[in-house]
Amino acid sequence: MGRHKMYLDKLSRFFQIRNLLLRQALAECLGTLILVMFGCGAVAQQVLSDGSHGMFLTVNFAFGFAATLGILVCGQVSGGHLNPAVTFALCLLGRERWRKFPMYFLFQTIGAFFGAAIIFGMYYDALWDFPGAFNVTGPGATAGIFATYPGKHLTLVNGFFDQIIGTSALIVCILAIVDPYNNPVPQGLEAFTVGFVVLVIGLSMGFNSGYAVNPARDLGPRIFTAMAGWGSEVFTTRNGWFLVPIFAPFLGTIIGVMIYQLMVGFHVEGEIRDKKSSEEENVRLTNVNTNNSKGANKEVH
Amino acid sequence: MGRHKMYLDKLSRFFQIRNLLLRQALAECLGTLILVMFGCGAVAQQVLSDGSHGMFLTVNFAFGFAATLGILVCGQVSGGHLNPAVTFALCLLGRERWRKFPMYFLFQTIGAFFGAAIIFGMYYDALWDFPGAFNVTGPGATAGIFATYPGKHLTLVNGFFDQIIGTSALIVCILAIVDPYNNPVPQGLEAFTVGFVVLVIGLSMGFNSGYAVNPARDLGPRIFTAMAGWGSEVFTTRNGWFLVPIFAPFLGTIIGVMIYQLMVGFHVEGEIRDKKSSEEENVRLTNVNTNNSKGANKEVH
Amino acid sequence: MGRHKMYLDKLSRFFQIRNLLLRQALAECLGTLILVMFGCGAVAQQVLSDGSHGMFLTVNFAFGFAATLGILVCGQVSGGHLNPAVTFALCLLGRERWRKFPMYFLFQTIGAFFGAAIIFGMYYDALWDFPGAFNVTGPGATAGIFATYPGKHLTLVNGFFDQIIGTSALIVCILAIVDPYNNPVPQGLEAFTVGFVVLVIGLSMGFNSGYAVNPARDLGPRIFTAMAGWGSEVFTTRNGWFLVPIFAPFLGTIIGVMIYQLMVGFHVEGEIRDKKSSEEENVRLTNVNTNNSKGANKEVH
Amino acid sequence: MGRHKMYLDKLSRFFQIRNLLLRQALAECLGTLILVMFGCGAVAQQVLSDGSHGMFLTVNFAFGFAATLGILVCGQVSGGHLNPAVTFALCLLGRERWRKFPMYFLFQTIGAFFGAAIIFGMYYDALWDFPGAFNVTGPGATAGIFATYPGKHLTLVNGFFDQIIGTSALIVCILAIVDPYNNPVPQGLEAFTVGFVVLVIGLSMGFNSGYAVNPARDLGPRIFTAMAGWGSEVFTTRNGWFLVPIFAPFLGTIIGVMIYQLMVGFHVEGEIRDKKSSEEENVRLTNVNTNNSKGANKEVH
Repeated sequence: MGRHKMYLDKLSRFFQIRNLLLRQALAECLGTLILVMFGCGAVAQQVLSDGSHGMFLTVNFAFGFAATLGILVCGQVSGGHLNPAVTFALCLLGRERWRKFPMYFLFQTIGAFFGAAIIFGMYYDALWDFPGAFNVTGPGATAGIFATYPGKHLTLVNGFFDQIIGTSALIVCILAIVDPYNNPVPQGLEAFTVGFVVLVIGLSMGFNSGYAVNPARDLGPRIFTAMAGWGSEVFTTRNGWFLVPIFAPFLGTIIGVMIYQLMVGFHVEGEIRDKKSSEEENVRLTNVNTNNSKGANKEVH
Repeated sequence: MGRHKMYLDKLSRFFQIRNLLLRQALAECLGTLILVMFGCGAVAQQVLSDGSHGMFLTVNFAFGFAATLGILVCGQVSGGHLNPAVTFALCLLGRERWRKFPMYFLFQTIGAFFGAAIIFGMYYDALWDFPGAFNVTGPGATAGIFATYPGKHLTLVNGFFDQIIGTSALIVCILAIVDPYNNPVPQGLEAFTVGFVVLVIGLSMGFNSGYAVNPARDLGPRIFTAMAGWGSEVFTTRNGWFLVPIFAPFLGTIIGVMIYQLMVGFHVEGEIRDKKSSEEENVRLTNVNTNNSKGANKEVH
Repeated sequence: MGRHKMYLDKLSRFFQIRNLLLRQALAECLGTLILVMFGCGAVAQQVLSDGSHGMFLTVNFAFGFAATLGILVCGQVSGGHLNPAVTFALCLLGRERWRKFPMYFLFQTIGAFFGAAIIFGMYYDALWDFPGAFNVTGPGATAGIFATYPGKHLTLVNGFFDQIIGTSALIVCILAIVDPYNNPVPQGLEAFTVGFVVLVIGLSMGFNSGYAVNPARDLGPRIFTAMAGWGSEVFTTRNGWFLVPIFAPFLGTIIGVMIYQLMVGFHVEGEIRDKKSSEEENVRLTNVNTNNSKGANKEVH
Repeated sequence: MGRHKMYLDKLSRFFQIRNLLLRQALAECLGTLILVMFGCGAVAQQVLSDGSHGMFLTVNFAFGFAATLGILVCGQVSGGHLNPAVTFALCLLGRERWRKFPMYFLFQTIGAFFGAAIIFGMYYDALWDFPGAFNVTGPGATAGIFATYPGKHLTLVNGFFDQIIGTSALIVCILAIVDPYNNPVPQGLEAFTVGFVVLVIGLSMGFNSGYAVNPARDLGPRIFTAMAGWGSEVFTTRNGWFLVPIFAPFLGTIIGVMIYQLMVGFHVEGEIRDKKSSEEENVRLTNVNTNNSKGANKEVH
């Protein structure tokens, strides 16, 4: 046992990374990998089994609980954003530094890329066995396993609006969950609650284009599919749809932050500030009184 | 960073509302918006996708967890009722002031109105693509996405009874969860538990008329559909059905409060009152004794 | 407000029941009513909607979470057994007094009776609209909404065995959850965990005869159906099947208690007893030493 | 009551096992029995009811929550591994002794064997009633109720890879949940979180070969089926597939441990070690200073 422990300790010292930001980015990468691996895995299972081993509900459950597990794996190290839109919201509110944003975005996208790659490897035989393998569009298309594509009924404008609504709903709920002035969830259950948010968004906002609401989750797997055999069509199809899940979520984030702050956040924050400042006022007044009384005492002498 | 924080602080001071009741009503409005947005969104997804992206179970899950998220978003500010029937029950029991009731009712209805509006915007293309778009009755009717309508088998009397039972079941469970003398749920998990209550009501009481059990959740979206293109038929159909989910829940609330109080609440409350009064008795007796002994002591002197 | 509170206080004093056992039995009655109302409601919804508003999974969820809610409503008062088999198990282990058993059994059965009655009233129109209304057997039978009946493939012997296995699985899990020497679940989450147990039993042991595993839950609704129009056939069908879910669960309880105690319970309990007795031994030895040293001290003097 | 308690106490003393390892192995046996009983029970229910009482989603829920319940039953005694791969991972990391590994493996397999046996007994009638009873391959095969078999599309290489990925995903998540330096989950909720992990793996990695990811869960029931009537074909089919779920999970464990440690574990651990050693440094320096000052003091004298 002793030698085993010593060996483990040596390994730990050898591989330890001391740069905090790199460590956080790595954790974020693993978290997003888990999110995309389980999430896209569920889509793959549903599509490739022709519905016998999955349905839209199982995909919703998988993405929801995958978000929970991804956050649990990396949350203590990096905060568990798993989503550049979440990082963006926290930067907007001054709770994270802006320089984290590009680093997190990059590593979240890398994690999503590898998450998709693992699922590709896992279901390689099933994919070749499937009639529409490597089709981007059409009835047996499989590109939708990895990245999101709009439904036939959806125009680009409505799709943009769809991603904005989805992301602002996500951000309003997440801000409520992590608001330091309004903590409604017991310590340690944030990850589960965020999982429920992702689940509910899937249950009610998934029909238009598959609720990406996450630029990294969509871009990473899309790049992977372009390289793995689906080709450049994944970018060109539907007039450059791929830009929507990259840009709309950030706009949605801004709207979500505004709604939450205007309707709940500012008031809760302000109440606490008012309480504090009135206390300080009291302290100042007490000091004045004390000084006066001291002065009075002095006069007596 | 410094300038960013200063700017945020200024914004916060500018938009802060100091009137407590208005702040609470606004929070209640956002919470109900979230409830209806996710809930009706799930119905829209099921109906418009013809069942490929949803089923009755997903609607139940969505309404349940949407209730949880709505409560989490506004609970710390306004109590997270999301339902005039819940406000009514707490007023009946003397735990909220009666003047809150109309204000909450109004803002809950406004929130439900806008929740429906968001879903209408989100699924605008899908709605136009759907055969029965803007039908209130008939096989491809879409009005049921937003407000509730009775099943073909249901008479008005049974429908009234249905809403009474559903609401009293809801109220009995909620009273148990928030009873100050009988707190069975760990602090901070009330929102999740209420979500389960809404889920279970949907699983077992949703077949007759879609379990509104909430006047605001039904009236707000119904007004929206009347304005958005479905017309006044949403009010006139089935002999004025729309009055049932407005009035029956309040009757159900009274029954629910009575059942819970008679079978559990009064006894728990009474036990604590008995304990307290017997302690006071002891204190009084002790005082008497002390006085006596003091008197005795005095006599000795 | 003052008059309202005074009035409520008077009501509370008037209706307060001071007999503890009666109060507990009433709470148990309400809890079982909730269990059966939501559970049988889900079966009714599935059967009467011909599967459009439910499936076997929704029934499992409903019974599971209904158990959770039933326990939450009455748990602080009566322990939240909801099932004579659970009361029996706790009596066997000496954790409840035997005289509670008949009282709980009676009131649990009454609660189940009224739970079924509420669902009957709620779905009265839907029932009359259903082709097989008031049939006990046959393809469109509705008696199975309320009480359990064996599948066509099931012999009486296998059915008896099925109920024994189901109940012992239930009891093993519940004993683990409430074992005072081995508390694996955080305070206040027992109700949720028991709900999961009931859910899992439904997911895996529900095919043979609908997992009653609870004499009160089966007998109460069966008596109700006999009175409400299905007639005495509910007792005579399948050679008196109704006796199986009354007697087999108690046998299953004995087996479950034995398995849990032999494989986990006795050892955990024993370890704590060993620890205690060794501490007492130490104390005794210390006392002896102290006495000796006192004696020694005395001798010195 | 007195005599009842005394009798129970005697029983407890008589059956108490004082060997810790045997007690832990017994608990592990019961936990794995519960996992396999509920999990395979759900598969049996789905297969034998031809989908009317189950679907792939119910199997996923059953295995997930069965894992939770199995861990709850034995977790306080044995740690609740239920899976030789988990035991192996903890041994690799030096958190459990290696000699536990064979003992746990054996008793987990025995537990899985009896779990399968109970389900066989429970669904005996249903099995004989089923067209493909006792077939290992073909459309109505029932061997898949107990052990896992690869899908038609799956090659042995992809199947091996599938089990490796599944197990490493499981291990990464479990290590995050139980990491002593990074505890993201509130005390007492580990069992529920592991249940979610098993659920998600089923939702997204179950299509290829039924996600055994557990040598004991697969081997025990397979041995049982060989004895109960399916014959030696359960071992010989598909070129000895049965070896894959025995050996691949251990390889997956090694990979999972490496990924978690390299991307999160080592850094969290290292940070704490760094903090400690800098504190020790401070203490040492303080001591030196104290000694010096003592020396200085001495010199003064």
